[in-house]
Amino acid sequence: MWEVTLDDTQALALGAGVLGTGGGGNTYIGRIWLERELRLSGKGCRIVDADELADDALAVGIGSMGAPTVGVEKLDAREEYLPIVRALGQHVGKPIDALVIGEIGGANSLIPLIAGLQLGLPVVDGDGMGRAFPELQMDNFSITGISTSPFGLGDSHGNTVIFQRVDSPFRAEQYGRALTIEMGGSAALAMPTMTGRQMKASLIRGTLSLTRRLGHALLDARRRSADPAEVVARLANGRVLFRGKITDVRRETVRGFARGHLKIAGFGESGELMEIVFQNEHLIAWHNGDVVCTVPDLVSILNLDDGEPIGTEMLRYGLRVAVIGMPAPRELKTPAALRLVGPAAFGYDVPFVPMPGHLL
Amino acid sequence: MWEVTLDDTQALALGAGVLGTGGGGNTYIGRIWLERELRLSGKGCRIVDADELADDALAVGIGSMGAPTVGVEKLDAREEYLPIVRALGQHVGKPIDALVIGEIGGANSLIPLIAGLQLGLPVVDGDGMGRAFPELQMDNFSITGISTSPFGLGDSHGNTVIFQRVDSPFRAEQYGRALTIEMGGSAALAMPTMTGRQMKASLIRGTLSLTRRLGHALLDARRRSADPAEVVARLANGRVLFRGKITDVRRETVRGFARGHLKIAGFGESGELMEIVFQNEHLIAWHNGDVVCTVPDLVSILNLDDGEPIGTEMLRYGLRVAVIGMPAPRELKTPAALRLVGPAAFGYDVPFVPMPGHLL
Repeated sequence: MWEVTLDDTQALALGAGVLGTGGGGNTYIGRIWLERELRLSGKGCRIVDADELADDALAVGIGSMGAPTVGVEKLDAREEYLPIVRALGQHVGKPIDALVIGEIGGANSLIPLIAGLQLGLPVVDGDGMGRAFPELQMDNFSITGISTSPFGLGDSHGNTVIFQRVDSPFRAEQYGRALTIEMGGSAALAMPTMTGRQMKASLIRGTLSLTRRLGHALLDARRRSADPAEVVARLANGRVLFRGKITDVRRETVRGFARGHLKIAGFGESGELMEIVFQNEHLIAWHNGDVVCTVPDLVSILNLDDGEPIGTEMLRYGLRVAVIGMPAPRELKTPAALRLVGPAAFGYDVPFVPMPGHLL
Repeated sequence: MWEVTLDDTQALALGAGVLGTGGGGNTYIGRIWLERELRLSGKGCRIVDADELADDALAVGIGSMGAPTVGVEKLDAREEYLPIVRALGQHVGKPIDALVIGEIGGANSLIPLIAGLQLGLPVVDGDGMGRAFPELQMDNFSITGISTSPFGLGDSHGNTVIFQRVDSPFRAEQYGRALTIEMGGSAALAMPTMTGRQMKASLIRGTLSLTRRLGHALLDARRRSADPAEVVARLANGRVLFRGKITDVRRETVRGFARGHLKIAGFGESGELMEIVFQNEHLIAWHNGDVVCTVPDLVSILNLDDGEPIGTEMLRYGLRVAVIGMPAPRELKTPAALRLVGPAAFGYDVPFVPMPGHLL
């Protein structure tokens, strides 16, 4: 067991930005929320290893659903998780014992910690995605067949909805997305509800620790004036794919998603070009027309100067950036997983050529 | 206590068509479902008086949510109500003792009887609207302040959603509508969950009996070759507003509602004209430009020849019709009720000039 304290929030926000691959919600806002909650509670957030939870304990995944572009504009108190987790516990007739990070990327790394502090519950070190993904059926809990329902969705007015039974993770995505849009474009999500045994079998372990390590390494690189992109790439078993200046960003919010397309021009005179498409998260990177990295491998964009990760909602013309490619965790590279999170699942007729190695 | 048997289904469908004021779902389809269920169960559906239920008993309103135009196209088995009512009972930790008709109009008069047969529960004689209305906040349960939540919504695949807490009936309408649209345009609704005491204080009583009386009177008029429109108008304390031929129907499905506008030309040479607007249900009737009947009073359209009520989804050019105006039940004419179901609530700047008397 360890604790997240005010000493970790800056590092966690940075690391969450890296693993967010452009999505998962703005980490600056998430960090402010987490710091506020740590100050209010006067103690740290307990982080436990998956094996510390009993097999018959009850765990629930926590995250925010919706377009990152919207999350930035909704600066509410993030207290929606209390009624949802309580309602879920009431619904299944058993209190929830621990929270699980739904996706370790962007603000969604930090929100479960906030909920843990509010509810007095520990948070498990690991998550369902090992990165961020835009849709509900794209986590390893769904991939390995853990039932999506019951799950809870709530808005910032305390309205709480329990999806008692849904017949597939895709249905959860479809119905949950429609309600999220109605809730103003972002909503609080508690999903899935699972036993300790299920969680241990499907969790992508240790990703919160990795988030913290990445963040502290970035901070250390800043202090040492080292190259932050190289530091991050090395720690995550990846490589720097490109350096250049953003010359074009197209972005629209479609059916609750931030979709877009990005061009980055190399610094030299040689006309080097990187293009990236995103749906909340970066999906595919092309270098001079050749695919160099695709989902489920991670594509992250850092500010070239200070290594600050840049979310898709913050991309803008003129930013000088480094693009990093990192291999996905091994759980996302099984045939079953690739059907749900490979390039074809996002509508791209591009083969998945994995980067060497694994995220952890 | 009395029973609905196969001898009543034709009459109930006719009466429900009259009180449906154009909406509430196609009664022909509803009647087929009900007859199928009566045959399957081999016994009648128990109808109880509100006072037969104990004050601390638990009752839940039942109906279908969505555009009537869609309901006609979804000929599924209507078995969504079982899992929803069971899930609601499980959620509140007490089994449901009786079903209440959400709106006594169109197929929504008959669907609670089907659910009652499936669940082995009695149905209370009365309903929440005394007619049909297009939106959830327009029933006397909401008008008198009974909490909308918890309520259940389900689709024909057995997907079941419990709205554990919603902060207003308007929110229930907003979120429920969004999910209903996603569920294919119609969904099974169980709302509100209330005690026997609450139900007795807010129910519009005796409307299922009225439905049956209206239907049997229509059938009797057919046999006697009497004027069906006059028979219906007399029994419901209303009057025949117009007779003529439909010359124009404009109809569109907007945000899950069937909205439209209707013109009926008189039979003489004098250019008499009736115009009617609808949102699932008929809202306002103008005779030669003068308002003659508005919500919450009832505007129903019958086929001139056989007295068959015509739902908004069946309106078409050339039909020869009688238009009947009937006074609303008194519960819908309080100042609190008129704020929710008067012409202004539907966006019309028209005063409510009540017809004399009350529906019952």
